[in-house]
Amino acid sequence: MSLPLGFTSQLSDLLRVGKGFSLAAQPTDAASGFDGKKVDGVATLAARAPVLAGLQEQLFAESRYGGKKSVLLVLQAMDTAGKGGIVSRVVGAVDPQGVKLKTFKAPTDEEKEHDFLWRVRPAAPGPGMLGVFDRSHYEDVLIHRVHGWADEAEIERRYAAINDFEAELADGGTTIVKVMLNLGPDEQLARLSARLHDPTKYWKYSPTDLDEREFWPDYMNAYQRAFEHTSTERAPWYVVPADKKWYARMAVQEILIEAMRGMNLHWPAGDYDLAHERSRLVGA
Amino acid sequence: MSLPLGFTSQLSDLLRVGKGFSLAAQPTDAASGFDGKKVDGVATLAARAPVLAGLQEQLFAESRYGGKKSVLLVLQAMDTAGKGGIVSRVVGAVDPQGVKLKTFKAPTDEEKEHDFLWRVRPAAPGPGMLGVFDRSHYEDVLIHRVHGWADEAEIERRYAAINDFEAELADGGTTIVKVMLNLGPDEQLARLSARLHDPTKYWKYSPTDLDEREFWPDYMNAYQRAFEHTSTERAPWYVVPADKKWYARMAVQEILIEAMRGMNLHWPAGDYDLAHERSRLVGA
Repeated sequence: MSLPLGFTSQLSDLLRVGKGFSLAAQPTDAASGFDGKKVDGVATLAARAPVLAGLQEQLFAESRYGGKKSVLLVLQAMDTAGKGGIVSRVVGAVDPQGVKLKTFKAPTDEEKEHDFLWRVRPAAPGPGMLGVFDRSHYEDVLIHRVHGWADEAEIERRYAAINDFEAELADGGTTIVKVMLNLGPDEQLARLSARLHDPTKYWKYSPTDLDEREFWPDYMNAYQRAFEHTSTERAPWYVVPADKKWYARMAVQEILIEAMRGMNLHWPAGDYDLAHERSRLVGA
Repeated sequence: MSLPLGFTSQLSDLLRVGKGFSLAAQPTDAASGFDGKKVDGVATLAARAPVLAGLQEQLFAESRYGGKKSVLLVLQAMDTAGKGGIVSRVVGAVDPQGVKLKTFKAPTDEEKEHDFLWRVRPAAPGPGMLGVFDRSHYEDVLIHRVHGWADEAEIERRYAAINDFEAELADGGTTIVKVMLNLGPDEQLARLSARLHDPTKYWKYSPTDLDEREFWPDYMNAYQRAFEHTSTERAPWYVVPADKKWYARMAVQEILIEAMRGMNLHWPAGDYDLAHERSRLVGA
């Protein structure tokens, strides 16, 4: 497969978490696999948007004629890393009719009474849909690990439960793409500061963002461990450098396109007699 | 308020269904209130997209600090009139996080056991959201009237129930915009034909589209009656000429913008001590 203009690698290969992966060794400010500047990346994002939208339409069309396939994009990251921007700028290019977005917040009292996957299962995308998890079941092995809300044995149990759950989704026809937006701490500080100096952004700031920032190394450890246990053949993790917003958006878009190209999608024929319907039209 | 470039009227005034409105007298192929060609309309749609997206972000931001306001866009039309295009091209420019889309299909057996509004109430947008109904509770006074699935007295009861329901939504903070995309029968025939001559569109065609087409005058009567009974001060109908897709999209976008401008939205201040948080950042 030839690469689109500007790319020097297939991003889904380059950014995929494989054996021996070390999060600590990953750059946060790189434009990995792309030979261009911001202006080129922004142009690429715009140029490739119809490609992603077209693949999703094909997925949706298949589902109308019995297709069972779907896509699930899982987004995890430190605060301000740009999950929202991925949703609005990458997913936003796809027809809203084909998107099922679920934002996971701190669990409710009812949700806490159940196993951690209880609230996640109903949020999985149905046939034809691009599902997006803004945060996800991974919070239960990330923040829970960092703050010791679950002990080591429980965290291990959860890794296994997650793998079983994701394998079940994959068996049902869901292509899973898990993305960690890898932000550097300096860039986070700059973005938090920006939120506190722009009245149109005050509402996005929360004092807990700074509280959690103090646990940065613990979070990075928790991510590393999660990757080791849950980056599987059928539900791989991708770690995307996120200091450059334009790069992160373009990269996630490209990873989705590559994943969906692998789904072997086709435009369905109708379930009606084409010649007969054409002749009916003539008299209508 | 000055008009945006190219507009000769405020569309929410011009296209609003008021006293004495006659659907039969409305053009389907006009570009009412716009002094431009397709190329200008397409440019206007693109240029105004960030305005709509910005208003929606403000609505969403308000809701994070206790705001109760929301918007509900109701879309009704004959088949192929372009509801899907409004969703993908107009609503699609808004952040998916702020959109709640509900597509109403033929009711399920469970839904049929309840009053017609039973399935509609839970689909109403929560605070901060732009809700979109692709078809709606109006099917129950349109197709039901056309095919005699409900008698005249029941249809009359439904008009009143709809007005009560919509007034309740408005009381709760929802700005309601109801749009009928007014397609001409010749243009419908051309679009149906296009679907039967393009393999990427076969999946969009259904033989029932042609069946329903035979009831065109009955549908127009049912719309006229529905407008007379349910175009209220707080939940007005807009009839948008829809033979020109570019115009219909631009017009619905503009009507939404005008409606949201009337909501008096503001960026919320945070609920934290700004000076204190800024000083915390310095040491972080």
